[in-house]
Amino acid sequence: MADEDVKVLFGRRVRQLRKEKGVSQEAFAHEIQIDRSYFGSIERGERNVSLENICLIAEGLGVAPAELLRFDAVAEAEAQDSIQDE
Amino acid sequence: MADEDVKVLFGRRVRQLRKEKGVSQEAFAHEIQIDRSYFGSIERGERNVSLENICLIAEGLGVAPAELLRFDAVAEAEAQDSIQDE
Repeated sequence: MADEDVKVLFGRRVRQLRKEKGVSQEAFAHEIQIDRSYFGSIERGERNVSLENICLIAEGLGVAPAELLRFDAVAEAEAQDSIQDE
Repeated sequence: MADEDVKVLFGRRVRQLRKEKGVSQEAFAHEIQIDRSYFGSIERGERNVSLENICLIAEGLGVAPAELLRFDAVAEAEAQDSIQDE
């Protein structure tokens, strides 16, 4: 959906890349030294994350910052999942 | 430089894309309805811009949000400029 909240889109994208990396929320938050419950709220789409935190998360995930704003990639991955679930 | 401040890198990228669009800081800030002096400070790399404002600026520039975090593109464009200046 074009008008979907960017905070929600961002949270989904972070969650997707963290899962691809195979680490838990807790372990990842610890690794990048941000509060675990704050990181959880980012993935739930509740935070208007700052540029510096976007870059911090990207660095922890081992991707370029721009990768975190590729919201189309989430929809593609979710479509792929639902095909595989059938 | 790898450790360069992301706020500065972001500001340069926004300035580059705004100039490519051929609009002044003042006209662009007015168009996306953000304060002109605040927008100036973003371009000067003084602001830790939020996700929502990154998306607002991207929309005004007519690019995908991820384009604004492609900091490598600024260096490429600047290298190109210096070749052309010679």
